[in-house]
Amino acid sequence: MVIGIDVGGTNTSGGLASQDGTLIAKIRHQTDRTGGAAAGLELISEIISELMERASRDGVKVRQIGVGFGGPVDFERGVVLLSHHVAGWEGIPLRDELERRFQTPVVVDNDANAGTLGEWRFGAGRGFNDLLYINIGTGIGGGIISSGRLLRGAHNLAGEIGHTIVVRDGPLCTCGKRGCLESCACGDAIARRGSEALGRHVSGKDVFALALDQDPAAQRVLSEVIEDLAHGIGTAVSLLNPAAVIIGGGLSEAPQALFLEPLKRAIPRFCLNESAANLHVNAAQLRYEAGIMGAVALALSQPGLASRCQ
Amino acid sequence: MVIGIDVGGTNTSGGLASQDGTLIAKIRHQTDRTGGAAAGLELISEIISELMERASRDGVKVRQIGVGFGGPVDFERGVVLLSHHVAGWEGIPLRDELERRFQTPVVVDNDANAGTLGEWRFGAGRGFNDLLYINIGTGIGGGIISSGRLLRGAHNLAGEIGHTIVVRDGPLCTCGKRGCLESCACGDAIARRGSEALGRHVSGKDVFALALDQDPAAQRVLSEVIEDLAHGIGTAVSLLNPAAVIIGGGLSEAPQALFLEPLKRAIPRFCLNESAANLHVNAAQLRYEAGIMGAVALALSQPGLASRCQ
Repeated sequence: MVIGIDVGGTNTSGGLASQDGTLIAKIRHQTDRTGGAAAGLELISEIISELMERASRDGVKVRQIGVGFGGPVDFERGVVLLSHHVAGWEGIPLRDELERRFQTPVVVDNDANAGTLGEWRFGAGRGFNDLLYINIGTGIGGGIISSGRLLRGAHNLAGEIGHTIVVRDGPLCTCGKRGCLESCACGDAIARRGSEALGRHVSGKDVFALALDQDPAAQRVLSEVIEDLAHGIGTAVSLLNPAAVIIGGGLSEAPQALFLEPLKRAIPRFCLNESAANLHVNAAQLRYEAGIMGAVALALSQPGLASRCQ
Repeated sequence: MVIGIDVGGTNTSGGLASQDGTLIAKIRHQTDRTGGAAAGLELISEIISELMERASRDGVKVRQIGVGFGGPVDFERGVVLLSHHVAGWEGIPLRDELERRFQTPVVVDNDANAGTLGEWRFGAGRGFNDLLYINIGTGIGGGIISSGRLLRGAHNLAGEIGHTIVVRDGPLCTCGKRGCLESCACGDAIARRGSEALGRHVSGKDVFALALDQDPAAQRVLSEVIEDLAHGIGTAVSLLNPAAVIIGGGLSEAPQALFLEPLKRAIPRFCLNESAANLHVNAAQLRYEAGIMGAVALALSQPGLASRCQ
């Protein structure tokens, strides 16, 4: 058995799972944003304690704990660099702290990497040795599997497709640059572009609903957003030559005819024909359990670590 | 000892080298473009025969032959898919044919991958486990080393940074798309942009010479080209988080103040600050021997293959 913990801005969740990804127990609590890192660490510990008690009642041993964290992580050292949502996480040695408390090997990574491992092991990415995962929601994150391994890069920062620039001198992004894919095509960007086009305040969901009702301005906004996404994804496809692109996050749940289908059609216009030829573009499958299952996959991805705490 | 063969559009070259990359012998012949694949195969065989005779005179055994080919290759099967320069190569099983003729294990890959392995093993990329190699010359090619392995992708097409789109609806590229990095920033593109800006026909070299002489139009063209290159490279840096970017090909030999230095300064404007923070951007080192040394590195990269022919 392993435990997977997903530390997000809204919820902190945990699951107890077997090797094949069957969830035996699941816990979800609201993240205490005002309590800072200290409250966050206590909540994580509380969830792990509960799941460990459950495992112990069932007579099974927890061999590994995986934590998918909403922010950059120094993977080698297991140290959080920053939370995207909660203050005070900078430099917290989350791995060592949890290993000390629970005497169980822990692996900590950012949630985009965890989500990539989750879809690869348990979701729409099963069977693909080379894939690109992109999560389109409040922000845009991603991860890369190459020859059956997560591509981390030199400082565990690889996969940042949301911050590849698709419109030079485009909208200002949270990262400080202009025209990043995230600033053009995340949920907030769709709301902003929709509001501008329609001359009134609308949400991202409104834009989809209006486009479904054949509103021409909303349809134009969506087609421009899809063009930007296809550009960012197509660039990654030319660079990486993946067998599959897996699209996750809130936007992947929009009506397929409105989003995934036109996106599939647009991607080949932005990458080498040879790389587009055999490319699968599929919606992610794990949906509400993506966070927990990503952390479970993360725990299962590092069996060698088990020796460190024994 | 290994043999490395570089099959280019202008020359076909070969070298006999030791494990540490010391070249013992070198042969260069003009590629017979009109003779098609048959003449090309004979020329390759002739060069290998000469180098094998040399090895035999020295009393050493050739354990592996690496071939860097100027065009896409089915790496798994050792089959040429297309030559960028010579007709008739489609589907030629170059690996098996050479193994049959020389009873020595052969590995065949495209010259961009070979060049990447060469700079990584023997050139400016030594010591970097994660690097991006980009070759800017007549065309723009590239390759990726990730966690100490060449990233091939699903169909050995990874690394095609020259065909990532940096200017939507930009100049027509040889690949059929518009605005690829290659169509904006290769040698021919610089000549084209220079000719347009100056109102007369100039070569890429002329543009550099004029910029060195403070011609404002040539300087503007170069700075726009560098901006496009920085965009393409910055995007790859955000996706891959390499420790180093190695710039090879003809353009890397331009005066540094005119090219490499401004490019180094521009890249961080097109990628995540965190990924730019510790990034090395260096000129390639192998220069005229890049092709042969790439093929030598390719031969050395696959020691396991030795068993197939024994």
